[in-house]
Amino acid sequence: MTAIYDRVALIGLGLIASSMSHAMRRHGLAHEITGTARSAETRKIAGEIGLCDRVTATAAEAVEGADLVVLAVPVGAMGAVAEEIGPHLKPGATVTDVGSVKRAVIEAVAPHIPEGVHLVPGHPLAGTEHSGPRAGFAELFENRWCLLVPPEGTDRDAVERLALLWQSMGSNVDLMDADHHDLVLAVTSHTPHLIAYTMVGVADDLRRVTDSEVVKYSAAGFRDFTRIAASDPTMWRDVFLTNKDATLEILGRFTEELFALQRAIRTGNGDLLHEYFTRTRGIRRGIIEAGQDTAAPDFGRVQRKADG
Amino acid sequence: MTAIYDRVALIGLGLIASSMSHAMRRHGLAHEITGTARSAETRKIAGEIGLCDRVTATAAEAVEGADLVVLAVPVGAMGAVAEEIGPHLKPGATVTDVGSVKRAVIEAVAPHIPEGVHLVPGHPLAGTEHSGPRAGFAELFENRWCLLVPPEGTDRDAVERLALLWQSMGSNVDLMDADHHDLVLAVTSHTPHLIAYTMVGVADDLRRVTDSEVVKYSAAGFRDFTRIAASDPTMWRDVFLTNKDATLEILGRFTEELFALQRAIRTGNGDLLHEYFTRTRGIRRGIIEAGQDTAAPDFGRVQRKADG
Repeated sequence: MTAIYDRVALIGLGLIASSMSHAMRRHGLAHEITGTARSAETRKIAGEIGLCDRVTATAAEAVEGADLVVLAVPVGAMGAVAEEIGPHLKPGATVTDVGSVKRAVIEAVAPHIPEGVHLVPGHPLAGTEHSGPRAGFAELFENRWCLLVPPEGTDRDAVERLALLWQSMGSNVDLMDADHHDLVLAVTSHTPHLIAYTMVGVADDLRRVTDSEVVKYSAAGFRDFTRIAASDPTMWRDVFLTNKDATLEILGRFTEELFALQRAIRTGNGDLLHEYFTRTRGIRRGIIEAGQDTAAPDFGRVQRKADG
Repeated sequence: MTAIYDRVALIGLGLIASSMSHAMRRHGLAHEITGTARSAETRKIAGEIGLCDRVTATAAEAVEGADLVVLAVPVGAMGAVAEEIGPHLKPGATVTDVGSVKRAVIEAVAPHIPEGVHLVPGHPLAGTEHSGPRAGFAELFENRWCLLVPPEGTDRDAVERLALLWQSMGSNVDLMDADHHDLVLAVTSHTPHLIAYTMVGVADDLRRVTDSEVVKYSAAGFRDFTRIAASDPTMWRDVFLTNKDATLEILGRFTEELFALQRAIRTGNGDLLHEYFTRTRGIRRGIIEAGQDTAAPDFGRVQRKADG
């Protein structure tokens, strides 16, 4: 494939950035990939495993001459990084990010982007519960959605070029408004994560059920929750702090529904429970039909591997 | 392997009973397996696929001469089935069940068990989100726990024989008090299921986010919830109605914790969130070390298959 960018700079070298590096190399999408991370340990590992063509000590160095700069740090760190790199960005370059929240990233980053540089925020809906420079793999984005949320008036060519990069890494690309993105993700990702963290915390904290019982008799359901609740704490702290309004709105709806079901249990209203549990099956069918999961049963002790 | 029971009767022919039939046949654990189900359609399918040696029209017929009777119907139906079969049970036979709640099953079933028949309630911690006579497979119980909760004074030989059956189907067996079982399962299974059902219901019900967006952009976390929320509605209705006290207790703890985290989000208390999310990682490690899940990342589009 023809390279889409001459030089790509990855700021932050965790799961997403390292997967991008593998994918861009496999498909020949960039002539040179530079990278940096705040942690010296991460930079050292990246150097050892040859993750980038050059690992630089600072973000300012990494972005020198780059046509595409990818901010792949926790959402709460985006503003500081943008401030550091702003003066070093090449005219005509594109700056994007991979954060799970979009309105807050735009507000933190946009003020530091100079005239003539294009800001095209993005969010690949892909990940695993692992993190760090060794966690990446080239197939992570295949058949996953990547949402781009360019502010109004963004250069159309810059958006199309970035979309082509994601498509070339295997993603489907959609454009979306930043606020709507944050609400959709509050439903499909952020609130579910908070709930899973909470349930695992409750289990850990109960005096009358020991941790070893929780571990030993962990059944389907809870086991999935623990997988979710093993995700990176810093990334998720920042998600909740920066997508506060949408998360609190969905949490409010969730609590309201939960109380209705709780009341049905307390009053013995089996019909309400049965009707509710029947309705939720429909969403599952939709997800399988959309190819976003398989219909094969989860036996609770699966061999998980990536497609393709 | 030598047969452990001469004749086994399966009452209800869903996922668990059909898996037991496959497993007992593979390992030669019974000379004859009879079975029945309330639904004529289920009995017809069972006959067509040869699930049992004999499919009978009634539970009373199925248990005639049986050394082991397995009640594999929703928890709310156990009492009526026990009442029907009580007069037909063979002296010296063992009656067990596979329900997810144990105190309520003992209360519903025990009054109908005649003198000289042994009641040894049980609960295999195994399952998939699929149900029905076609859903079973012989490996379902391998490396899974089966909890037996014999009431005080139960015949020791009857308990040991049933334990041997489960071990021969690949399970690990533990004995437990019925009330403690119900509390442990409220934490590791029942409350997580209710929460997953609730979250999927909220997503389905939001006007500002379309169902198609929920399906399309369903990320890790939510996708796992939809799998859980596709489980059998009747079974789960009965679980919540019959394990009411323990479920409400754990739900209360869950809501308390959720409100604390919600408050941390509202007030911007990032330290509390980070500390909480770090602590929950420990439980996940324990589950992986205990061999109840794999450390392989869940890429969100996995090929799931059974071990062994």
